[in-house]
Amino acid sequence: MVRISIDAMGGDHGPAVTVAGLQNVVQRRSDVRFLIFGQQDVVAPVLDRFPKVAAVSDFVHCEIAVRMDDKPSQALRHGRWKSSMWKAIEAVKAGDADVCISAGNTGALMAMSKFCLRTMASIERPAIAAIWPTARSESIVLDVGATIGADAHQLIDFAILGSAMARALFQVERPTVGLLNVGVEEIKGQEDVREAGRLLREADLKTMDYRGYVEGDDIGKGTVDVVVTEGFSGNIALKTAEGTAKQIAEYLRAAMSRTWMARLGYVFARDAFQRLREKMDVRKINGGVFLGLNGIVVKSHGGTDDEGFAAAVELGYDMVRNRLIDKIRADIDLFHAKVPDVRVRAEPNGEQGQA
Amino acid sequence: MVRISIDAMGGDHGPAVTVAGLQNVVQRRSDVRFLIFGQQDVVAPVLDRFPKVAAVSDFVHCEIAVRMDDKPSQALRHGRWKSSMWKAIEAVKAGDADVCISAGNTGALMAMSKFCLRTMASIERPAIAAIWPTARSESIVLDVGATIGADAHQLIDFAILGSAMARALFQVERPTVGLLNVGVEEIKGQEDVREAGRLLREADLKTMDYRGYVEGDDIGKGTVDVVVTEGFSGNIALKTAEGTAKQIAEYLRAAMSRTWMARLGYVFARDAFQRLREKMDVRKINGGVFLGLNGIVVKSHGGTDDEGFAAAVELGYDMVRNRLIDKIRADIDLFHAKVPDVRVRAEPNGEQGQA
Repeated sequence: MVRISIDAMGGDHGPAVTVAGLQNVVQRRSDVRFLIFGQQDVVAPVLDRFPKVAAVSDFVHCEIAVRMDDKPSQALRHGRWKSSMWKAIEAVKAGDADVCISAGNTGALMAMSKFCLRTMASIERPAIAAIWPTARSESIVLDVGATIGADAHQLIDFAILGSAMARALFQVERPTVGLLNVGVEEIKGQEDVREAGRLLREADLKTMDYRGYVEGDDIGKGTVDVVVTEGFSGNIALKTAEGTAKQIAEYLRAAMSRTWMARLGYVFARDAFQRLREKMDVRKINGGVFLGLNGIVVKSHGGTDDEGFAAAVELGYDMVRNRLIDKIRADIDLFHAKVPDVRVRAEPNGEQGQA
Repeated sequence: MVRISIDAMGGDHGPAVTVAGLQNVVQRRSDVRFLIFGQQDVVAPVLDRFPKVAAVSDFVHCEIAVRMDDKPSQALRHGRWKSSMWKAIEAVKAGDADVCISAGNTGALMAMSKFCLRTMASIERPAIAAIWPTARSESIVLDVGATIGADAHQLIDFAILGSAMARALFQVERPTVGLLNVGVEEIKGQEDVREAGRLLREADLKTMDYRGYVEGDDIGKGTVDVVVTEGFSGNIALKTAEGTAKQIAEYLRAAMSRTWMARLGYVFARDAFQRLREKMDVRKINGGVFLGLNGIVVKSHGGTDDEGFAAAVELGYDMVRNRLIDKIRADIDLFHAKVPDVRVRAEPNGEQGQA
């Protein structure tokens, strides 16, 4: 049985989407239980409409719902201890749930997750990992926006976290890992990336196959299973790719509706376009995974629909089933056994955890 | 008359592409002269095949050609004073040419350009500006890889350089400008972006309409005319967008050739696909512009063909015709008149210029 805690209030549409999404999950998986947190007057009527969900769920009423535009500090001030978001995270800490899913706002969810779950021993900063569709299959890219900047050791942490996730999700024994970099050599300012590369190469871990630097266009090619970078450039890359995909879809739509010949062609090729649409369907790869904390939290897109929310829930399910947290702990130990004096640690969770 | 210096040896194919590209330019513009630098035994036979180019060109023999895989320091060591790349840049410095075009390697071209032309008064670092096709039209994104990292004042320099270029190319009087950022607020590490935003807002220049932060997906939307960021994330964004476009083109190709219905549809919609292909044709927007130096240098893609190289030459032509350098100088003065005590300057050209 996989026990999943749900912040039912998160997202642009709240329970109408989140609870409906759970219905899709129970239709596909028989071994799940949900712990649903939210405002009774909003969630209860929706649960009534989805008896199959209600049948495998416990519901906990929470007064407070974190708003999509709350700043992280506001959310912590008003929502700590009592909001549906907090309670859903806390269920993981308390051992009542194996993973937490929220479509609530990213900054608030990360701030609360850090505060509640804390970073794992020897991990300085959490990361948000995205699953990225590639020409070959899928890759993991992290950090896509948990924090800005990363030193060499934090980049190595991300490589360990990402490769453990790749092993949990992609059924590869030794995922390939690349450090995101720019092509021009001898450029100043990338000392941390270079140092991380050197240490990863030297460590030569059996849990990851470090392949050196990759560039922006390697992400879409699927050159490596795991692309490691700091959160600013990772977030820019993710959003830029989303924007480019939308832009091309618009070009295509405009081109195919311009003449009657093109429209006729569209009719014949309708199945092909449908396949393309499915291939580019961001709902299917919905879910940013918070890694490096003592528990798994999955962030669903706020604007997604029920199927997108279900994908985020199932992503969490898969990671529990494949024992992601155990894998990460083992990988951290392995790395530090190989590279013992890797750094003088700051006080764990100090600066970051109190944000 | 616009006088253009050409490094004929640059690029993956050398004069076969560069000189052929000039042929396309002379067919479209009557008021150009070329100053062509390269190895006589390689360039002369190609020039013989393009008499229209030869008729408006002076050719200067250079022993050395910078290789595509030379590191910047190697290129400077072996190619300074005597390579075709150096000589083409030097022609701008000497006033023999108005703009320099090379398809040679980016790192070497930037190192030589900085060394030879030096940065403009009060500009600390040069930037590479890319022209980015958007859903609306085109935008300018800089820096896409000249240097890594930028403090608040360097970001402001980039905003000034980019908005002057937008006025030169897009015929807008007050281009809109955005600072590239990530969506999550209250995140540590973006002090420089925030400070740059504050100063640009306060300066309220008549030469640019500062619109605040933009995110990665705003680039493709064309939310602003000029997107300002430091070189690492700018380069990642550019390459990621290129990779995504290729990936989708491959999806589309695979989908359209899978069934006979789809192939039939493709036949009917052939013109539409042709339009799409033209819209996504990177050759037409070929050319990274080095800004912030005492002279304009345009970097063509190394792997481009004659039409792509011609586009880079014509981009240089347009910027000369529209007096880009004068615009930049005036804009810098304007900004510093408004924000006089903006910084304590490092020794001009010191650290960067000696690279």
